[in-house]
Amino acid sequence: MSESTSPYDVLVIGAGYAGLTAMHELRKAGKNVLLLEARDRVGGRVWTKRFDDGAYVDLGGAWIGPTQDRLYALAREFGVETFKTYDEGKSTQFFRGQVKRYKGLIPPLPIGSLLSLDAAIKKMNKLSKTVNLAEPWSTPNAGQLDSMTLATWMNQQMSFDVARQFFKVAAEAIWAADPAEISMLHALFYTKSCRDLDTLMNIKNGAQEERFAGGAQTIADRLAATFSDRIIFNEPVKAITQDGEQVSVITKTKTYQAKRVIVTVPPALQNRIDFQPLLPAQRAQLIQRMPMGSVWKCYAIYDKPFWREQGLNGLAATPDGHVTVTFDTSPKDGSQGIMMGFVLGNQAKEFSGLSDEDRKLSALHSFATFFGQEALKPVRYFDHSFMDEEWSRGCYAGLMGPNVWTTLGSSLRTPVGRIHWAGTETSDIWNGYIDGAVRSGERAAKEVMH
Amino acid sequence: MSESTSPYDVLVIGAGYAGLTAMHELRKAGKNVLLLEARDRVGGRVWTKRFDDGAYVDLGGAWIGPTQDRLYALAREFGVETFKTYDEGKSTQFFRGQVKRYKGLIPPLPIGSLLSLDAAIKKMNKLSKTVNLAEPWSTPNAGQLDSMTLATWMNQQMSFDVARQFFKVAAEAIWAADPAEISMLHALFYTKSCRDLDTLMNIKNGAQEERFAGGAQTIADRLAATFSDRIIFNEPVKAITQDGEQVSVITKTKTYQAKRVIVTVPPALQNRIDFQPLLPAQRAQLIQRMPMGSVWKCYAIYDKPFWREQGLNGLAATPDGHVTVTFDTSPKDGSQGIMMGFVLGNQAKEFSGLSDEDRKLSALHSFATFFGQEALKPVRYFDHSFMDEEWSRGCYAGLMGPNVWTTLGSSLRTPVGRIHWAGTETSDIWNGYIDGAVRSGERAAKEVMH
Repeated sequence: MSESTSPYDVLVIGAGYAGLTAMHELRKAGKNVLLLEARDRVGGRVWTKRFDDGAYVDLGGAWIGPTQDRLYALAREFGVETFKTYDEGKSTQFFRGQVKRYKGLIPPLPIGSLLSLDAAIKKMNKLSKTVNLAEPWSTPNAGQLDSMTLATWMNQQMSFDVARQFFKVAAEAIWAADPAEISMLHALFYTKSCRDLDTLMNIKNGAQEERFAGGAQTIADRLAATFSDRIIFNEPVKAITQDGEQVSVITKTKTYQAKRVIVTVPPALQNRIDFQPLLPAQRAQLIQRMPMGSVWKCYAIYDKPFWREQGLNGLAATPDGHVTVTFDTSPKDGSQGIMMGFVLGNQAKEFSGLSDEDRKLSALHSFATFFGQEALKPVRYFDHSFMDEEWSRGCYAGLMGPNVWTTLGSSLRTPVGRIHWAGTETSDIWNGYIDGAVRSGERAAKEVMH
Repeated sequence: MSESTSPYDVLVIGAGYAGLTAMHELRKAGKNVLLLEARDRVGGRVWTKRFDDGAYVDLGGAWIGPTQDRLYALAREFGVETFKTYDEGKSTQFFRGQVKRYKGLIPPLPIGSLLSLDAAIKKMNKLSKTVNLAEPWSTPNAGQLDSMTLATWMNQQMSFDVARQFFKVAAEAIWAADPAEISMLHALFYTKSCRDLDTLMNIKNGAQEERFAGGAQTIADRLAATFSDRIIFNEPVKAITQDGEQVSVITKTKTYQAKRVIVTVPPALQNRIDFQPLLPAQRAQLIQRMPMGSVWKCYAIYDKPFWREQGLNGLAATPDGHVTVTFDTSPKDGSQGIMMGFVLGNQAKEFSGLSDEDRKLSALHSFATFFGQEALKPVRYFDHSFMDEEWSRGCYAGLMGPNVWTTLGSSLRTPVGRIHWAGTETSDIWNGYIDGAVRSGERAAKEVMH
């Protein structure tokens, strides 16, 4: 192990959007900074896979929408164009063996279920307004809300099984987790953090409204290019030690020294770093209690977006099978047809137990059910899960089960000596999203400069 | 890093009761084995602190009771005497500012609350009988039971606030966790695993019936003494790599090779080991979802067990304050008075935020409230939490929140190639207890020899 001689103002750990943004802000302020990244690329849970023929797909974070202002600002700054997610024509619902097409936001459900579903969404939106975003544990009735799962609340609110099933499909798509895994308080926090459930679910006026020309990693690539001499790749951090004077970040081969460090890796992975002195008990217990969500993205690439010719927008939703939600993720010019299917929550955990071939069969079978037999013959199929990635171990984000926010939430952003915490999980606005990561990087940069 | 030349049959990681028992079994079978331990002592979450004057206290696991047969067998084998926990005289209840004394198991509560509490205990015992211990996910109605917290179930069952408060005190003492943190399915699994709630709560005929002469670590010490040349202390494992031929266990200074390895460290800490190839997604997600319980033990040592003179057994229970449950843990001969107070669940997390002095004040204040002013003047006070211990980070055990057993539970014991899993969390009998650890070590030893 060799000793690094440069003493940095700030070391940033993790080159996802949180870490890149922190670097960007600190460099603007003239700080001497260095970014350590375990992977061989930037972007973290945003990863654009590019094919030789020019096609590209986003394996992680992919969309941008209204009120994601900090991410829009970065896109503008780095000249990355955004474009509308394809949303023309009818949506598809598959339920009890039947395919139904419908226009607009109201799915073709029996009227009782539809009203029940609508009432639950409205009630959750209303309840979410009571959340104290900066201190969720100070929300009125926080203890009660944090003692139950979202699933329990759903059971209390919706007597119609069908309503619950479709609420569950939406919840899984929002959190990449089963409603049984999430604290009701966390669900409300997250909902308000991202404006409301409608924003979370929708394309138009919602979190899926736009995409990035060249893929969601493009901003990250361009941002990183402005300080490529300040990034060390393939450099996982093994240990962080600190005393009253400075902090040392230890990797397999080197020790880096600085006045401050910003850790952006997801809470569940922070346990992999040896902290000396040890993290305080409350923070140690917190990071045992923020598991990563569970999701696969399944991509089928076709010569053309054939569903468009049938007047379909490529959106499908179903409570059955592995793939429960789909999106048209074709390139802007529609020169290819790219169908993306989400496998979410408990289905994602199950999907991880299947062979490559069985996963492909299952996903293509779902696509064919929704959009016709043409879906069975893609030019190319592949799927990906961040659960299999050593430096993420899940997506979209670390989640709070019951009893976490109210008892350990105050440790989430509180610095530990010279160690500061960033990452989308620490953001009170667009928590779990790229925009939240950007905001957390900006906040952490301000914090260390203070 | 130097290469070890000895190829072992089995490497065991962790010298708690699971690892020691596995070693014991493997050595009886003539296997070439080695035990690696991160700490400088054996016992793991069982740790007897011994004072110069001969006094000793158990900072972790402390009791033994009926049906803990495997632990009793070890005690006999290593000549460790057990003795009855002191239980003569009246118990103490503190509630709404009033101290009440009572005999037997029925606390002095208003009759409505008492009936409600009793009915809930009986109902939970009955429901627990339906659990499939070997495969909790196959329990009838598992999905529903695993979608809610124990707190939700308590709210459904008990309309009396007082009943819920005292059920909560008991639940916290059983799980070292708030009922809001635990899946109802896990609570039922655990209850059946340890026979029933009465067994879990009681001294007589229960899990606290007896203690160990010399402390609970004594068996571990004697067991380890039979193969002291086969234990490497202060040897935390950094990485485990395996191929079709063998497994390598890598520490800071050495690489050990073997045919099989048994990992006994708690699930939440397994993330600290770099596994190559990576752990499968399902196991990686599982170990993000088994947080350690939260508990402090507060000890006050007096010249004599003065409460006995007042006809008190030293047992107290209260829903108020930090210390909610106490036990008389004086030596068998009563030559000193040792009062132990549990700070449990959410109170434990809060307690971790207090200064040494404030923790002492709080605990002694509770003791004085229960047993009189004499409690304010101990010869010695100290407290301890495994949350602050690098190699435990909580106690008693790793817990399942909602939605874990039913979706990832089957990964808990399933070997990953040449890696086998032990530890009390993997036991279907006396899960969370020393006896469960012993059983898991026996099971894992059988598994690797198979």
